[in-house]
Amino acid sequence: MMKEKLTVVKVGGGIVEEESSLRQLLAAFSAIDGYKVLVHGGGRSATKIAERLGIESRMVNGRRITDADMLNVVTMVYGGLVNKSIVAGLQACGVNALGLTGTDMDVIRSHKRPAKDVDYGFVGDVDTVNGKLLEELIRKDIVPVMAPLTHDGKGHILNTNADTIAGETAKALAPYFNVTLIFCFEKKGVLRDADDENSVIGHIDEADFKRYVEDGTIQGGMIPKLENSFDAIRAGVDKVVITLATAIDGRSGTIIEK
Amino acid sequence: MMKEKLTVVKVGGGIVEEESSLRQLLAAFSAIDGYKVLVHGGGRSATKIAERLGIESRMVNGRRITDADMLNVVTMVYGGLVNKSIVAGLQACGVNALGLTGTDMDVIRSHKRPAKDVDYGFVGDVDTVNGKLLEELIRKDIVPVMAPLTHDGKGHILNTNADTIAGETAKALAPYFNVTLIFCFEKKGVLRDADDENSVIGHIDEADFKRYVEDGTIQGGMIPKLENSFDAIRAGVDKVVITLATAIDGRSGTIIEK
Repeated sequence: MMKEKLTVVKVGGGIVEEESSLRQLLAAFSAIDGYKVLVHGGGRSATKIAERLGIESRMVNGRRITDADMLNVVTMVYGGLVNKSIVAGLQACGVNALGLTGTDMDVIRSHKRPAKDVDYGFVGDVDTVNGKLLEELIRKDIVPVMAPLTHDGKGHILNTNADTIAGETAKALAPYFNVTLIFCFEKKGVLRDADDENSVIGHIDEADFKRYVEDGTIQGGMIPKLENSFDAIRAGVDKVVITLATAIDGRSGTIIEK
Repeated sequence: MMKEKLTVVKVGGGIVEEESSLRQLLAAFSAIDGYKVLVHGGGRSATKIAERLGIESRMVNGRRITDADMLNVVTMVYGGLVNKSIVAGLQACGVNALGLTGTDMDVIRSHKRPAKDVDYGFVGDVDTVNGKLLEELIRKDIVPVMAPLTHDGKGHILNTNADTIAGETAKALAPYFNVTLIFCFEKKGVLRDADDENSVIGHIDEADFKRYVEDGTIQGGMIPKLENSFDAIRAGVDKVVITLATAIDGRSGTIIEK
């Protein structure tokens, strides 16, 4: 049986936190044909609100340390402010959005990351995504808008990386749909030359990736993003795209295919 | 056809904002047989967070003035912190909770209250509750947990009184279920003597109510609460109960019946 198309779009904090870029994103996302899911971050807003509340943001390797106070902040900001602003904006575009955290309908179950070299605090590593439940909602033309929060089933909300949420959600939906996973960020794609915005690598496979990492073309935060991408492809996702938030048509940016 | 039982419980801010009273409420709510919906407030938390953010809470006649900054606060606190804490807590009790604001799946549409004597700001008066959609979720054993936020369908979130959300939701579900609406507050019920906790009026009808208002037995915030209650009964709700959050078995407190 031919599977229908589904697009999972992950947008970072910066894009959803400014009125004008949010409006652009909502228009671009609304224009995507077929079934879709939006996953958002919100780190910048969380940092700002935390600062105003006198709560210090501590980061290790670009990851947030989530103590009890910070967990309250991300629960408010990701689950409330950012999520509901996007949902209301999509409703105005005629998209029947439903804001979800992992705890809603037990959609994403996780466990608290054990403290090893770094104690990240209330951070959850994903165990299961309820793909069947999401599929049922999606087939009713409901568009899940997912905040980067999960839960452990014991009453604890946990902070979870939005790229991970997007990747795991795309994988959980791969049995039901022909899934394209789009990671939006502030560049046009993976660049061959960091100083040249137009040096986008159009397609990349695992052999290319290995080579680019070895020769230093690809470095930093792009490495885990691409590792996530190949992992998603191996788990049944059809296509991963790394692109600008304004170019989420599935054809622009850097493309990774099965 | 015999309709199945559904209980809509409305809890105020104070109850959900303290760990111990929240735990008691979750246990009592989990113990309710049959289909159910929880509607919560969160005003005290919103006031506290607003204060920490340097945003002034302004109230007129016990109602909050919601300017743009305060709208962000209530969106965070009601839609994020309070809602998701309850949902995670219910999941731990084996209740398959789904946190909703009115904008999620367009569940509750409202319009901004026109500024007359008082400009309440971003406050929404309810136009429609999608009872059919809620019914479908509820029949799948999903338990909606509703924050007091609605939307106008044009991208604006609006702050809406939680008692109103509870009343309108109960009315919208009355065609599908035999609905009991429970308003929790800090007293055992409507009291005959404000100084005597045990002077609960067991049953009240509209004629009693009128008499009690005239002779001053019932006054203040209890008047709109009871007006809401009679309004719900007239609109098809079977039973309204006004009681303590720890006594939501549908038999304690002040009862209003068809």
